[in-house]
Amino acid sequence: MTTRTEAVKAYLLDLQDRICSALETFETDTRFIEDAWTRPAGGGGRTRVIENGAVIEKGGVNFSHVFGSGLPPSASAHRPELAGRGFEALGVSLVIHPHNPHVPTSHANVRFFIAEKEGEEAVWWFGGGFDLTPYYANEDDCIHWHRVAEQACAPFGADVYARYKAWCDTYFHIKHRNEPRGIGGLFFDDLNEWDFDTCFAFIRAIGDAYIDAYLPIVQRRKAQAYTEQQREFQEFRRGRYVEFNLVYDRGTLFGLQSGGRTESILMSLPPQVRWSYDWKADVGSEEARLTDYFLQDRDWLGVAAPKAAV
Amino acid sequence: MTTRTEAVKAYLLDLQDRICSALETFETDTRFIEDAWTRPAGGGGRTRVIENGAVIEKGGVNFSHVFGSGLPPSASAHRPELAGRGFEALGVSLVIHPHNPHVPTSHANVRFFIAEKEGEEAVWWFGGGFDLTPYYANEDDCIHWHRVAEQACAPFGADVYARYKAWCDTYFHIKHRNEPRGIGGLFFDDLNEWDFDTCFAFIRAIGDAYIDAYLPIVQRRKAQAYTEQQREFQEFRRGRYVEFNLVYDRGTLFGLQSGGRTESILMSLPPQVRWSYDWKADVGSEEARLTDYFLQDRDWLGVAAPKAAV
Repeated sequence: MTTRTEAVKAYLLDLQDRICSALETFETDTRFIEDAWTRPAGGGGRTRVIENGAVIEKGGVNFSHVFGSGLPPSASAHRPELAGRGFEALGVSLVIHPHNPHVPTSHANVRFFIAEKEGEEAVWWFGGGFDLTPYYANEDDCIHWHRVAEQACAPFGADVYARYKAWCDTYFHIKHRNEPRGIGGLFFDDLNEWDFDTCFAFIRAIGDAYIDAYLPIVQRRKAQAYTEQQREFQEFRRGRYVEFNLVYDRGTLFGLQSGGRTESILMSLPPQVRWSYDWKADVGSEEARLTDYFLQDRDWLGVAAPKAAV
Repeated sequence: MTTRTEAVKAYLLDLQDRICSALETFETDTRFIEDAWTRPAGGGGRTRVIENGAVIEKGGVNFSHVFGSGLPPSASAHRPELAGRGFEALGVSLVIHPHNPHVPTSHANVRFFIAEKEGEEAVWWFGGGFDLTPYYANEDDCIHWHRVAEQACAPFGADVYARYKAWCDTYFHIKHRNEPRGIGGLFFDDLNEWDFDTCFAFIRAIGDAYIDAYLPIVQRRKAQAYTEQQREFQEFRRGRYVEFNLVYDRGTLFGLQSGGRTESILMSLPPQVRWSYDWKADVGSEEARLTDYFLQDRDWLGVAAPKAAV
């Protein structure tokens, strides 16, 4: 393990601690449980899961650090020449599924890869971001979420938010539904456009910003009353989350392909889900407003964001 | 459309009618609803779905007939040289998810492909099979299911059942769980080892056998009492069904990749599903018996079946 890897690892473990502590402030008795695991092929992780809490129905905040001799193709779509090389991957990945359909699901990930290249210096890059998946969405929440994202990016360049916001919209797109998974946020991969220290500072800014972005939304919405019908709509929309994660998500595929720990990878799946044939919201309903207005790759801050900046 | 395609199409439409009528005998008021659809890139289908019946919680029996100029790679793992060629695909595909956890989920599919090869005769093949996914399994049901499968295969060769039973076990394997999806049945693809008439007769035998295999099991189990806990176990196990279909199933991937009708393809997903972190059945429980005894690629008829005959 290099000095760089050590530094990233220390930050990620601390981030995992801070996120879990922050989320536990919403709970009365329920706490994250921890499973430490090792991977036969090299490395391991620290999975933290919370279930059936007062606010969080199911959530996982996972740290992992794995090594391997063959980088799976899903690890870097942009660097096919690295497939099969030795690698080291560290990350924190989290998904929070609240009970209340007025509280959005959130996802965040920060990760660091090093791939060995024979006779050359190791190639490293960061990836990550965070994105929000509301069921009954609020404009204020969406603007707040994107505002925090923008402020985290601002010190690193005027166009960073717009580029990674657009990449997020492109990435979290459910092709077979022609629908975004949520209202977006930030997504980036293969990040080494700046020197290591700057990239690492950026990753820290993103990891820390997740807490500032999500907690106020949970706080505002967690006590809002909801009906059984609204709960059913949430379970139906969670089906879209499953479809994205199992069919398209690079992190999920990387985990399953690299012999990762299945229960840690699939902690992202929602606790209760419904699929109804060809379900359609009534025209003009709150449910229709989710897809008609909110899930539209919208420019929440009035910042012109280039589409598909990948 | 050739004479062969016409003959296959007529059989498939009739099979769809007969299966729907047979399943409707279990219902009081609920009937299959039909959606006819066309595909912009060529072809279309006749989707039939039943929801919230007395016995069937969600089921789909779909006919489709699609043409295209580029065969998706998922269509034939054994014939990569055909990728991108013009093709025609016909099939009936069905999945039945009953309410009662004592009634297994069943899946069946029969399909016919023709791929054009420049300057050569068109290449055709059949595929299909049927498989059973119990929650609280019964040995008698498993033996009956496999006995009907064996009898359907017997006229076509002494080793046919054993080969396609083994292929089914290999195909319906959830790699990241190291667990079969169910207790198997038959699976075959790229079938053109006999002449067209024999292959077509075989497909008809398989399509017809599904009815004889499934209906007596539904009849026997549909009135059996169950608890809320047993229902939860069913919803949890349905999660495995979703994982298989979205991560591995060739038919699902072919459908989504070839611009198929999403709602018809994903009618296979169960109506209500649960995911709990690292859920484990109590040792010695009925729930543990499902995975410990039934989901073991078992030789139900005492016929030595070669593993992995693919």
